[in-house]
Amino acid sequence: MIVEVIAVGTELLLGQIVNTNAGFIGSMLAERGFDAHFHQTVGDNLERMVEAIDTASRRADAVIITGGIGPTQDDITREALAAATGRELVFNDDYADRLRKWWSSRGATMPENNLRQATHPAGSELMINPRGSAPGIALEHEGTSLFCVPGVPAEMEFLVVNEVLPRLARLAGTDQAIASRLIRTWGRSESGVAEALDDLYEATNPSIAFLASASEIKVRVTAKAATVKEAMALIEPVELEVRARLGDSVFGVDDETIERVLLDLLAEREYTIGTAESVTGGMVTARLTDLPGSSAVVKGGLIAYDSQLKQDLLGVEDISRVVEETAAKQMADGARELLGVDIAVALTGSAGPTPLEKPPGTIVIAVATPEDTRAREIKYTGDRERVRVFATTAALHLTRLAILGRWWNG
Amino acid sequence: MIVEVIAVGTELLLGQIVNTNAGFIGSMLAERGFDAHFHQTVGDNLERMVEAIDTASRRADAVIITGGIGPTQDDITREALAAATGRELVFNDDYADRLRKWWSSRGATMPENNLRQATHPAGSELMINPRGSAPGIALEHEGTSLFCVPGVPAEMEFLVVNEVLPRLARLAGTDQAIASRLIRTWGRSESGVAEALDDLYEATNPSIAFLASASEIKVRVTAKAATVKEAMALIEPVELEVRARLGDSVFGVDDETIERVLLDLLAEREYTIGTAESVTGGMVTARLTDLPGSSAVVKGGLIAYDSQLKQDLLGVEDISRVVEETAAKQMADGARELLGVDIAVALTGSAGPTPLEKPPGTIVIAVATPEDTRAREIKYTGDRERVRVFATTAALHLTRLAILGRWWNG
Repeated sequence: MIVEVIAVGTELLLGQIVNTNAGFIGSMLAERGFDAHFHQTVGDNLERMVEAIDTASRRADAVIITGGIGPTQDDITREALAAATGRELVFNDDYADRLRKWWSSRGATMPENNLRQATHPAGSELMINPRGSAPGIALEHEGTSLFCVPGVPAEMEFLVVNEVLPRLARLAGTDQAIASRLIRTWGRSESGVAEALDDLYEATNPSIAFLASASEIKVRVTAKAATVKEAMALIEPVELEVRARLGDSVFGVDDETIERVLLDLLAEREYTIGTAESVTGGMVTARLTDLPGSSAVVKGGLIAYDSQLKQDLLGVEDISRVVEETAAKQMADGARELLGVDIAVALTGSAGPTPLEKPPGTIVIAVATPEDTRAREIKYTGDRERVRVFATTAALHLTRLAILGRWWNG
Repeated sequence: MIVEVIAVGTELLLGQIVNTNAGFIGSMLAERGFDAHFHQTVGDNLERMVEAIDTASRRADAVIITGGIGPTQDDITREALAAATGRELVFNDDYADRLRKWWSSRGATMPENNLRQATHPAGSELMINPRGSAPGIALEHEGTSLFCVPGVPAEMEFLVVNEVLPRLARLAGTDQAIASRLIRTWGRSESGVAEALDDLYEATNPSIAFLASASEIKVRVTAKAATVKEAMALIEPVELEVRARLGDSVFGVDDETIERVLLDLLAEREYTIGTAESVTGGMVTARLTDLPGSSAVVKGGLIAYDSQLKQDLLGVEDISRVVEETAAKQMADGARELLGVDIAVALTGSAGPTPLEKPPGTIVIAVATPEDTRAREIKYTGDRERVRVFATTAALHLTRLAILGRWWNG
């Protein structure tokens, strides 16, 4: 079953907001074995929205349209869906009542423009959205299933997971199963990973693909079979071979992000962790605390952006030379003491664009464990944001390696 | 001149990486007055890539294809471009030499698969990419200009800005100018903003549109005229009217993010700033240090994720009740002292999913200035990530308001 995603909004075309919705819907579809061949993005323009819906309806079994069903005047997905399917818009009195109650339960008066959300194409069904005021719309038209969901991510996610996907599964009946495994690596280049797996790439079932995100390279192994179990059985030997060839670079699979892997390792060893960040300004700790339950092992961190704080609170001796392994080690050791933690990771460096002691992109990361304190200088290319993101990821990986008694020499 | 963007990569369809490239290219095109009506995303599949290129070529004057020109075997944009334009792929000896030198200058041996990057459709031109090994490709075909750039953001950005946009400008000659102004607000709901501007929405030149990102609502005013100057003159009275109606909610325009506005305000007042973060784990300080030059005013922060650190290092008295205005104020006051800063912002709360003292989504933000210390409890809905992002944004806004001697009562 082929499903196409259409994201609606001039602000997406203009790049004022990033289209994360298409990716979310794509991942949900892939997980459940639906194929997506195309995503489209179209602005808030009736004629072009109709063109996008027509194109998608022609080549897909189902179409999910996200965005353009809010209360404001530029939200015209309802109108476009009606035009594309040759239907009238009808007004739903029940839903209008529901909207008025939703607002009054919050002690507020409904702006009148919200009533636009009670209109929908004749013959379509409203899908209740408990996270917001715009309902989703489901419509069968000439053999294609059309779904509209809001553009606000939390509302879109709720309706896709709870309404759209179950409807698609019912429509699909028992279909061919697809399974995939994402093998996560860090420390090798994309072309290095690809070359190591060159011959495996020829196979079509399972097939393999590479994806680079920040400095992590992921290898996706995908198989099709009658059941998910059979598809997984096809994947298993390929996964073992990939692991054998990539060795220490592999740190996790599927949704095992480095944050997840590191937090689990800390919990398993009964270690607490703290940070001393300069160049990354809190990004490492923010990622460590992204996950629920991180408070069991993460105690906190000192962001010593200013050099004097490095000396006063962390005990760095020579603050005229802070982009050095010595300074990074003193920061890590100082953080262990100040925060009372078992493991401390410290980052210092020059993110740019102005050089600080060394050229922009020079980062020094140190990890202190109960056994020892190690440091490593790394040079990154690219702009300030890229350097900070890559350094943050490297810090998490080096912390994991140090706890395991290993280190990175790439 | 109409330009269409095609992002290539099965990983985009599967949602394994987010399509930020289309947004970047879209914003660059909009800035220079080019219209984008559609973006497409297509997987690493030859037939469907050809379909996407055909569709875009039919309805746009120029097409920018991003992704699929790397060294690995699933990078087949070169082949798709050749197939869509009925051309052979040719091998470029000069570029192959350049690739070998690029690798040897880094003291490494080139993996042989990199040579695929030296092939391109006959009659096309290679665009040199100093940030990576894959060159861009420029090709004129039956009245449409086709450009391929890498999918790696830093490489894509370089080639779009330095190669593609100048070529498009030459092709367009003198065209109609477009100008737009983004008016940034915080503290009102999207429908509240829309209702306040209801009648302004009817106009077509300038036209207005709303966009919500996290808790900020932006109003975009766009005008077309013979010159950018004339278009800006059309925008000016509309901007004044929008500002008059939205009052204190307006904090900046265009690329004046709250980080930029806040850092400028701090510099103007000669204030330094520090943070005490719990629930946001470093996110506020990470955003404050995103911008180059932030070290002039940002000294650092204490991430007191663990309650004991709130007491030991910040002087919070009762750590059995940390999600309270009293605790937040003590954190802010404690941070002012510990870090030796003029302004301190503190955040504590319950991000979820597990409740901490109060229901998930309860956040308390305090700001200490040389004059006073204010606190505010806010309740957010949504998941952990949403709560942390909204709280981070609110902290930056409340800090700005406190420095200005104002506060938020929404």
